[in-house]
Amino acid sequence: MSSLDQPGDLDILAGLGGVPARLADAISSMPLVDHHVHGCFTGTVTRSEFEQAINEGSPDPIPDFMTQFDSQLGFAIRRWCAPLLGLAPHATADEYWAARSKLAPVELNRLLLRKAGVEHWIIDTGFSSSDISTPAEMSEDSGAGSSEILRLEPLAETVAGTTESGSSFAADFREALRQAAPAVVGFKTIAAYRCGFDIDWSDPGDPLLAEAVARWKQDTRGALRIQDPVIISFIVHAAAEYRLPIQFHVGLGDRDMDLHRSNPMLLLGLLRQPALHGTPVMLLHCYPYHREAGYLAQAFNNVYFDVGLSLNYVGARSTGIVAESLELAPFAKQLYSSDAFGLPELHVLGSVLWRRSMAQTLGRWVRQEDWSEADAIRVAQMIASGNARRVYALDDGPSGG
Amino acid sequence: MSSLDQPGDLDILAGLGGVPARLADAISSMPLVDHHVHGCFTGTVTRSEFEQAINEGSPDPIPDFMTQFDSQLGFAIRRWCAPLLGLAPHATADEYWAARSKLAPVELNRLLLRKAGVEHWIIDTGFSSSDISTPAEMSEDSGAGSSEILRLEPLAETVAGTTESGSSFAADFREALRQAAPAVVGFKTIAAYRCGFDIDWSDPGDPLLAEAVARWKQDTRGALRIQDPVIISFIVHAAAEYRLPIQFHVGLGDRDMDLHRSNPMLLLGLLRQPALHGTPVMLLHCYPYHREAGYLAQAFNNVYFDVGLSLNYVGARSTGIVAESLELAPFAKQLYSSDAFGLPELHVLGSVLWRRSMAQTLGRWVRQEDWSEADAIRVAQMIASGNARRVYALDDGPSGG
Amino acid sequence: MSSLDQPGDLDILAGLGGVPARLADAISSMPLVDHHVHGCFTGTVTRSEFEQAINEGSPDPIPDFMTQFDSQLGFAIRRWCAPLLGLAPHATADEYWAARSKLAPVELNRLLLRKAGVEHWIIDTGFSSSDISTPAEMSEDSGAGSSEILRLEPLAETVAGTTESGSSFAADFREALRQAAPAVVGFKTIAAYRCGFDIDWSDPGDPLLAEAVARWKQDTRGALRIQDPVIISFIVHAAAEYRLPIQFHVGLGDRDMDLHRSNPMLLLGLLRQPALHGTPVMLLHCYPYHREAGYLAQAFNNVYFDVGLSLNYVGARSTGIVAESLELAPFAKQLYSSDAFGLPELHVLGSVLWRRSMAQTLGRWVRQEDWSEADAIRVAQMIASGNARRVYALDDGPSGG
Repeated sequence: MSSLDQPGDLDILAGLGGVPARLADAISSMPLVDHHVHGCFTGTVTRSEFEQAINEGSPDPIPDFMTQFDSQLGFAIRRWCAPLLGLAPHATADEYWAARSKLAPVELNRLLLRKAGVEHWIIDTGFSSSDISTPAEMSEDSGAGSSEILRLEPLAETVAGTTESGSSFAADFREALRQAAPAVVGFKTIAAYRCGFDIDWSDPGDPLLAEAVARWKQDTRGALRIQDPVIISFIVHAAAEYRLPIQFHVGLGDRDMDLHRSNPMLLLGLLRQPALHGTPVMLLHCYPYHREAGYLAQAFNNVYFDVGLSLNYVGARSTGIVAESLELAPFAKQLYSSDAFGLPELHVLGSVLWRRSMAQTLGRWVRQEDWSEADAIRVAQMIASGNARRVYALDDGPSGG
Repeated sequence: MSSLDQPGDLDILAGLGGVPARLADAISSMPLVDHHVHGCFTGTVTRSEFEQAINEGSPDPIPDFMTQFDSQLGFAIRRWCAPLLGLAPHATADEYWAARSKLAPVELNRLLLRKAGVEHWIIDTGFSSSDISTPAEMSEDSGAGSSEILRLEPLAETVAGTTESGSSFAADFREALRQAAPAVVGFKTIAAYRCGFDIDWSDPGDPLLAEAVARWKQDTRGALRIQDPVIISFIVHAAAEYRLPIQFHVGLGDRDMDLHRSNPMLLLGLLRQPALHGTPVMLLHCYPYHREAGYLAQAFNNVYFDVGLSLNYVGARSTGIVAESLELAPFAKQLYSSDAFGLPELHVLGSVLWRRSMAQTLGRWVRQEDWSEADAIRVAQMIASGNARRVYALDDGPSGG
Repeated sequence: MSSLDQPGDLDILAGLGGVPARLADAISSMPLVDHHVHGCFTGTVTRSEFEQAINEGSPDPIPDFMTQFDSQLGFAIRRWCAPLLGLAPHATADEYWAARSKLAPVELNRLLLRKAGVEHWIIDTGFSSSDISTPAEMSEDSGAGSSEILRLEPLAETVAGTTESGSSFAADFREALRQAAPAVVGFKTIAAYRCGFDIDWSDPGDPLLAEAVARWKQDTRGALRIQDPVIISFIVHAAAEYRLPIQFHVGLGDRDMDLHRSNPMLLLGLLRQPALHGTPVMLLHCYPYHREAGYLAQAFNNVYFDVGLSLNYVGARSTGIVAESLELAPFAKQLYSSDAFGLPELHVLGSVLWRRSMAQTLGRWVRQEDWSEADAIRVAQMIASGNARRVYALDDGPSGG
């Protein structure tokens, strides 16, 4: 941990009365494993690109009648990131933008990433990977360790585009997985974006799969996304054999997906299959289905979840979401993530908002004698890093950088 | 504003500790645009009619074993409206009823409406319009401005009942819209009640529409409600061409509708159509789908929402709903409404509960240093009136009566 | 009440500041009717059986990497039950287990049941009834009254297994109901587990029913569960004719059921039928669909609900769930239950967590002047016992044991 700047100098718990002292200290300083995150922009962004990057749901430019800074996330950036750039808390959007613009991207990334108190990043490199820092760059910029997650759909598209025919796809995909697996600590599927969860999740036989791939090759000449549920189900089953964690995008995402068809209850047909029971299934984000995710984490020994992405987007309301996430799931089954992409503000804010929300929520329970302080610290540590270290078998030490 | 009585003499923030003073003053006194509301009863109501009018979900008489006063809304009426009738807060239901019964309907309407601090009513005149005050009467009784919203389904029923044949409906409906549009600031659809949102939302071609209208004319001889998804989709598309806001009833309503089929996520198929992108879509009420509504307000530049009706019905719990409504949606995309119908208690309570909930929620964030006080006041003003003035292009001045 | 130990000596409201004194006293000591509960284990359980018994969702053993004590329910047991065994609050899981193991099952049951402050148990005897205390034993162990609920599906299976043919089933089932009804105060259906709620809820005619039963008899030779929606719908309609309350399992349950297909909105097709309107429909547990349940309790005069089971499982978060349950439903339509099964810890915790959550929630409303203290006490009494006494027509006196 000595190589990490601590986020404590942000006074993360400012304004919160009544958090017991040992708990406050522990939560402010405990190192995090960010188990689902992306790299940072390596080039400059314009203000309008910045504003679009703080809207998760829409691909359109922010309309003239408003600024995306007028949102919980925008307010959180002005509150928590402004001081890191030498401004007063709640600096105006214009002041913030002016100060931010004075820094080169790499300076900004280094400044902000080091304030997150993250000791290990588990990085999904499968989305828009140009102009985004690599895992090695993330480690260099932050002083923290990093590991990689492999996104299944792009791999399947590469293999399907080059495989000889529909019937050679299965073997070629398995071979590609075999080659890729040693370099990663887990897989990720964006089935939510491709076909939704309300599909037949059985492992399709060879003929059905061959036919689906052949259809894709013919229809698209390899140019389009794979959305066929038969192929999606196959690649998840094939990956599950490695017993590495498989991350599922669940809930909150852009309007391209049918949010309600990513309700994790629709994964029951997959989760009930014995073939999956040895494979950790990591439900990411989950808002507004985090209660359903918590239920699944109680109902299946191999199901885990986080409320990652949502905390940044709900800003001051993150305490409410964190509280709701601490209902049904056993404490060994919840993890921390930021799902930050591009803007290093998101990497640090995920940490700030999670710490602040945990301190408020657990602090109240300790104050009200519902929980002991020692238990509160222990549970925070499990979610901060312990569960991730166990599930992903991270070996750079319990608090190493 | 000088023509409006302020609700301040209600001591709306009584009992709430710790709301910063400037924020408390601002929220107590800022004028509201109530962007979805109905008129008041112009005749007397019996106690049993009154009790039925404070149950949104059921068309049946309140059973003998209970009183509907024993509900959050009933308690809120006794708490906040009793003092306006000269009674102590929390007067009993019998005391309240006795005091209320001494006032003529118009006296009661004038007394209560003026306490709402509303400077402009946007009135849906399409439901049960006899025995209900007109927009002109609402203005006279309240001293505030008013505008009108046109409900699409009754217009379609009138046109379908008189049009020559199925194939003349489209042109006749467009002509009826053209004539009606200049007098209104927007439209409303109750598709939720007629067919639910899980329909094919594409603009049907002429033959399909003609056939659907012909079927309706034949089956019903014009006597029944239009419920055919083909006709509903058509009238929404036809109205959208005016680029005036279209209000959608979403969520909480009476048991006649399938609540779960009014989940606003089921509008994705409509919202994704480019033809709609220039038309403001106003999601009304939304409970218990207000998180989904907030998501859509982030995902689509033209989507807005409120938690109108629900605040009255959840009474002391309105703070919780307001907090949940301030998650994903940019602050430029949320509005105030009461959806009050008939009882002027509902017109004033909507205002009291919204102000109280905003003061509690934003007050806590300011106290905890999450938000600045200036931002909190600014956001409250946007939701109170600014967003509505912009979207409905109201021209009676930023705080005029 | 003199025969009941009061839970007051637990200091149920420890750590909660600001609950008005009369309300605190009333909620701490008011007797409860637990309107849906099961018996206690009459034999000893191993630690691993104990840990499994505090996981509602999963039938699997708790995995080695965790203990189910690390959950909200586990923490609540250590907090509230440890002192009843002579330990400090928050005793470790090992300490708790050691102390618990020193007591014979009947000693433990007697010790804990008497701390629940329950004056009447309404017991579902239809699940795993061996090794579970009978209603008579529950009364003896607790000093409280008890009544019985009849589960419809096991009765239907018994009748279907012995009836001559498909076409004799209807009459035989009605006769079995007729014989069983006088001994019970209501019925229960686990349609949620058998076919989900998204079925055709009309009363099937005789031919359809006969055919369905014949199919079941042939396919299973009477060995398997009845899951056919036709039979399930029939037995609910047949039971409804008695006008006794029918309990429906809703929401939270084990992974065997499709949680999302137990959304109570899917019961609309049943609830709208006039034949049901004279029969109380009791929605049990309901998490995470408690808002939908509250809506139905407003929309239908005969619908009631509780958040029973969920309170135990969310522990320190129960205040949040209780608050959410006090939104739309009239106060005459909500009840208390624990749904405790097997472990007497669950019988007492249901009571502790409900009292504590009500005191916090109503206490805040009284402190903030939203509600009067007298109203708060009155509403708590309605939910604690008054509504249950009315609906189940319990005749052992308003506070008798």
